[in-house]
Amino acid sequence: MKIHTLCIIGVGLIGGSLARALRKAGVCQHIVGCSRRRQNLEKAVALGVIDRFDTDVAKAVVDADMIVVTVPLIAMEPLFRAMASSIAPNAVITDGGSAKRSVLAAARAAFGRVPENLVPAHPIAGAEQSGVESSFDALFQGRRVIITPVAETDPTALVRVRTMWEAAGAEVTEMDAEHHDRVLAATSHLPHVLAYTLVDMLGKMNEKTEIFRYAAGGFRDFTRIASSDPQMWHDICLSNGDAIITVLERFQEELQSVIGAIQREEGESIKALFTRAKQYRDQNT
Amino acid sequence: MKIHTLCIIGVGLIGGSLARALRKAGVCQHIVGCSRRRQNLEKAVALGVIDRFDTDVAKAVVDADMIVVTVPLIAMEPLFRAMASSIAPNAVITDGGSAKRSVLAAARAAFGRVPENLVPAHPIAGAEQSGVESSFDALFQGRRVIITPVAETDPTALVRVRTMWEAAGAEVTEMDAEHHDRVLAATSHLPHVLAYTLVDMLGKMNEKTEIFRYAAGGFRDFTRIASSDPQMWHDICLSNGDAIITVLERFQEELQSVIGAIQREEGESIKALFTRAKQYRDQNT
Repeated sequence: MKIHTLCIIGVGLIGGSLARALRKAGVCQHIVGCSRRRQNLEKAVALGVIDRFDTDVAKAVVDADMIVVTVPLIAMEPLFRAMASSIAPNAVITDGGSAKRSVLAAARAAFGRVPENLVPAHPIAGAEQSGVESSFDALFQGRRVIITPVAETDPTALVRVRTMWEAAGAEVTEMDAEHHDRVLAATSHLPHVLAYTLVDMLGKMNEKTEIFRYAAGGFRDFTRIASSDPQMWHDICLSNGDAIITVLERFQEELQSVIGAIQREEGESIKALFTRAKQYRDQNT
Repeated sequence: MKIHTLCIIGVGLIGGSLARALRKAGVCQHIVGCSRRRQNLEKAVALGVIDRFDTDVAKAVVDADMIVVTVPLIAMEPLFRAMASSIAPNAVITDGGSAKRSVLAAARAAFGRVPENLVPAHPIAGAEQSGVESSFDALFQGRRVIITPVAETDPTALVRVRTMWEAAGAEVTEMDAEHHDRVLAATSHLPHVLAYTLVDMLGKMNEKTEIFRYAAGGFRDFTRIASSDPQMWHDICLSNGDAIITVLERFQEELQSVIGAIQREEGESIKALFTRAKQYRDQNT
């Protein structure tokens, strides 16, 4: 797979790391960056992540045969609109959004349909850090990327996106957007909401008792994801709200039954739940 | 501070690490171990953690001027009973339990009162690992130990226990048992119950969707504490149930309000909560 001109829109941790990985793999000749902040793009050039940039997305995409949109979820629709008339006929478009039905909806709103050359994707990688200065070429090594094509998706475009992510070191899986959104709501969005909610609650209690002083090492790990970017997680909560609410409500039910078991001092069922959970985790992570 | 004979009852990660730390600090001459499993005690001798052992607690404590009880919370009361008539007049007793009102209750049940020479303590250290083979002398370096004396506690006994933990490298704080149990319910017991409940819920969903395959790095950190010892956490849930239920119910209320905010697409309040939580965490861990 060869990319003549790669256009990365939103040159942050994900976009920057993809550019670095593809350059290292020798699969792309030119890399154009685009973002709203010129300063960020200048930094990306200085770091060798991109070759050149344009802050005008319509101009940035014009030569590209591969367009990767790694902007916040709520910025997808205006961005699609802005680039719509400038996309080359041979270009393939993909994205890096953490929710996939909302990206398809943004495409439908902007283009009037899901373009055949759009292949939505979600690289399951990232960290609390963000920004192009945190990017590195090995970010996707051994990580999963989920691609969520629709019926109209051009099979050639799909293969190009799959091969691109594989060239960056990722393992690519295909599923439909709805399934993706349900799975990620459970394994990623729910834990983030729980961590944020817990730390906020303890923070409010902390004013009186300096509670964090007595937190142990396990607490630091458990709450690490509460240091993630609030804007990004705000976007995810609004973009995948229904799936997130479904798992949050299920979690509330599970928690209610644990409360009941503790209230009734049902030692055996508490121990059975903890034992199952330990087994699930030890076997699966 | 000098200990002539230290008796460690329950020679596991905590008891074993304390023995190693005090020996290294040169503050104790003889270390006697006691536990139900002879094999464990033989291993502890082979590892140089203890000098000798007795599986009969009444015999194990007889020469000791410092008795440290690091057994599961639900084993405290029978153990106190078994040692009651053998404790030397000059001995000080302490423990390592994660809940403190229940240790005081066990003492009242076994001794008819809280003995003046009993100084309950909780070293906030530990890990998913357990067992004497995981013990190491630096476990308590820079960690906090909370001691929870009562009105009857002999000040000399209190100083001896405080100095012992300081010799092991810990920073010692004093508070009452009720306050300890509320604080630890929030910072430790609640996160563990959330992690266990989440992993159990995902494990049940996993049967259909292989959901864990799509969990990212953040998930591994978030659920690390769900690999903790189920028996120990069962004990804690039964020993500190009322305080744990209080924080679980408060957490449910907080989570319910997050669900409402997502349902009503209240972006600003979601972002405000996530931003507060990130600040609390970044400032306090």
